[in-house]
Amino acid sequence: MRQVITLLTDFGTRDYFVASMKGAILSINPDAVVIDITHDVPSFNVLKAAFILWATYRYYPRGTVHVVVVDPGVGTSRRALAIRSRNYYFIGPDNGVLTMAADDDGVVEVREISNRSVMLGEVSSTFHGRDIFAPAAAHIGLTRFEDYGPVVRDYVKLTMPEPRLESGVIKAQVVYVDKFGNVFTSVRRGMFNIGYGDLLTVNVKGRLVRLRVNRSYGYVDRGEALALFNSMNFLELAVNGGSFAEEYGLSEGDQVELTVVR
Amino acid sequence: MRQVITLLTDFGTRDYFVASMKGAILSINPDAVVIDITHDVPSFNVLKAAFILWATYRYYPRGTVHVVVVDPGVGTSRRALAIRSRNYYFIGPDNGVLTMAADDDGVVEVREISNRSVMLGEVSSTFHGRDIFAPAAAHIGLTRFEDYGPVVRDYVKLTMPEPRLESGVIKAQVVYVDKFGNVFTSVRRGMFNIGYGDLLTVNVKGRLVRLRVNRSYGYVDRGEALALFNSMNFLELAVNGGSFAEEYGLSEGDQVELTVVR
Amino acid sequence: MRQVITLLTDFGTRDYFVASMKGAILSINPDAVVIDITHDVPSFNVLKAAFILWATYRYYPRGTVHVVVVDPGVGTSRRALAIRSRNYYFIGPDNGVLTMAADDDGVVEVREISNRSVMLGEVSSTFHGRDIFAPAAAHIGLTRFEDYGPVVRDYVKLTMPEPRLESGVIKAQVVYVDKFGNVFTSVRRGMFNIGYGDLLTVNVKGRLVRLRVNRSYGYVDRGEALALFNSMNFLELAVNGGSFAEEYGLSEGDQVELTVVR
Repeated sequence: MRQVITLLTDFGTRDYFVASMKGAILSINPDAVVIDITHDVPSFNVLKAAFILWATYRYYPRGTVHVVVVDPGVGTSRRALAIRSRNYYFIGPDNGVLTMAADDDGVVEVREISNRSVMLGEVSSTFHGRDIFAPAAAHIGLTRFEDYGPVVRDYVKLTMPEPRLESGVIKAQVVYVDKFGNVFTSVRRGMFNIGYGDLLTVNVKGRLVRLRVNRSYGYVDRGEALALFNSMNFLELAVNGGSFAEEYGLSEGDQVELTVVR
Repeated sequence: MRQVITLLTDFGTRDYFVASMKGAILSINPDAVVIDITHDVPSFNVLKAAFILWATYRYYPRGTVHVVVVDPGVGTSRRALAIRSRNYYFIGPDNGVLTMAADDDGVVEVREISNRSVMLGEVSSTFHGRDIFAPAAAHIGLTRFEDYGPVVRDYVKLTMPEPRLESGVIKAQVVYVDKFGNVFTSVRRGMFNIGYGDLLTVNVKGRLVRLRVNRSYGYVDRGEALALFNSMNFLELAVNGGSFAEEYGLSEGDQVELTVVR
Repeated sequence: MRQVITLLTDFGTRDYFVASMKGAILSINPDAVVIDITHDVPSFNVLKAAFILWATYRYYPRGTVHVVVVDPGVGTSRRALAIRSRNYYFIGPDNGVLTMAADDDGVVEVREISNRSVMLGEVSSTFHGRDIFAPAAAHIGLTRFEDYGPVVRDYVKLTMPEPRLESGVIKAQVVYVDKFGNVFTSVRRGMFNIGYGDLLTVNVKGRLVRLRVNRSYGYVDRGEALALFNSMNFLELAVNGGSFAEEYGLSEGDQVELTVVR
């Protein structure tokens, strides 16, 4: 079966970690198609991995298995989970990293991976990516889902931060900074009646910036700042051809305050 | 159909961008084989992407679809192109990034991608890689090429810089610096009668270096500089086991002057 | 034939090198499945590549072809090798990079790749990854192994460094430092009677550290140092949520001395 399996980890690509996972998968299901989401999640950053999974999972074919290993608790009592949602499977540790995406798609069933027959023969206590998660992913379609282990109801959940409106000021959070330095705020398209052409005053750590909501980067001059609703429908703060995050010293988790100038 | 589709972008690999493109492709053509050329092109560097595509495309099987997304003009009036050349397909923005390779292979037909049925259902204004280019690539072989959109004749072209001979001095340009710090000059094998064993005087920003044209790095001592005709037939300036670019402060676009010592 | 072929190089991923190798493979065997082990081996670091191959190869399906190109001697008289071991094939330069893994699996036959019909039509003197090693790998299963070239018996070997016990002190070497800064010593599980719960005194460049052998990172507080037997059964020095290598200034090749406190 040509099963698509995606991998998302904080393992980087310079070691043997990711490649061992791929080998383990292909040894169990030689017809699997293994796709990297990314392995460059900052070490132990569960929230960032959850966001990337949420932004990506939906573009994959129905039945795709998404494996996430950002797992500071490896080898302790934290559980290994297999989640079946309406259209996908999710495999990873029980630290919330899977749930932002799985809840978005609609969780159908969550099981603890405890059946040794969906793991490698020898299970180390420090590399469950290779010894449990990858093999468990490869067994989807080969082993019945109900045989993975007992149903789990009290799994850890992570949710997207929501902006608040306080006396006319939108208090938002930086939920993501991408490679270009574009800053995703927690404000989504449709919230607070913000639309194309609106002028915003943004309070970035005490510094006030006036930004027009544009359709894309190229509508302002190179080096000029702008706002836009981006490809995941977040209100994004950007600089055409530059890095808003760097220019304004913003990182994920930071607060920004926005006012719409009417 | 086991269609090979390659991806070349400046998206990096730490975000959700590349993985969303792959998902979009597999959702349309589940049998596609998606291969990364690179995603580490410096942001917005169209010329570098064009060079890498040119150096790579020819090694792929006939019928391969090459997708390039280095696209500072995303969401503006710049067009999305599908190019059919003698042996390949090229998909990307109309900023020249495709043409160095496509012209090399021989352009047969260029079309603007305007047919909504080869795009995702919802098209954002900032991520055409996922919403237009990846789906359009996945539709090659599934949708007739003439149905992509109208023929385009005035597309943007980029060409390889050529060295000039001025009163016995070869005025060349640095066209590429690779990961090892090897410096590709615009001088190609066969030009100016340069051959193995020739001694060159190279003027690097006022500093004169004497280099022998060798067959490979290992023919000089570690740490010693040399010239050679490299794997793409450029005259390359290198240091065995070291970085010529770093030692001599050279970057892409810089000028070097060469004289053959006869 | 859906032949799995893995690639391990020091080429990085920002140039055209790796992608050209993949194209060359798919042009010869369109059904090959090409998997990256890593391309981020530090330039010319043969020993590190050998270690990563050794740690990874065994997780792949029987019959997998492992290609390694860390090749400071490219284009000189160093030979190109094809190795058949009990369960795998290994392709790469004759500098020892293949032998730690191949010997571990059990070498059956070693041949020099000299048959031009398993190479590209044109062979450069600086990029044998694309022109010799990738095509030779793609020909496994298509060309008889005995037709690759003459048998070689005096190939270069690399072996894993072994710790020594000197008057009660274990003199070990740092054999690997991973992305997280975890330090693999040359002490393997089962050596010197070290087990869970043991207390070790480690002499790191004159600095004495007391570490308990734990089962995994999460058994000590964040920021606390520990020892454990890791996923490749090495005695590893680590910091939970941190980098032991950085905190203690350790790199591959460094010496550490260990004493078991009984």
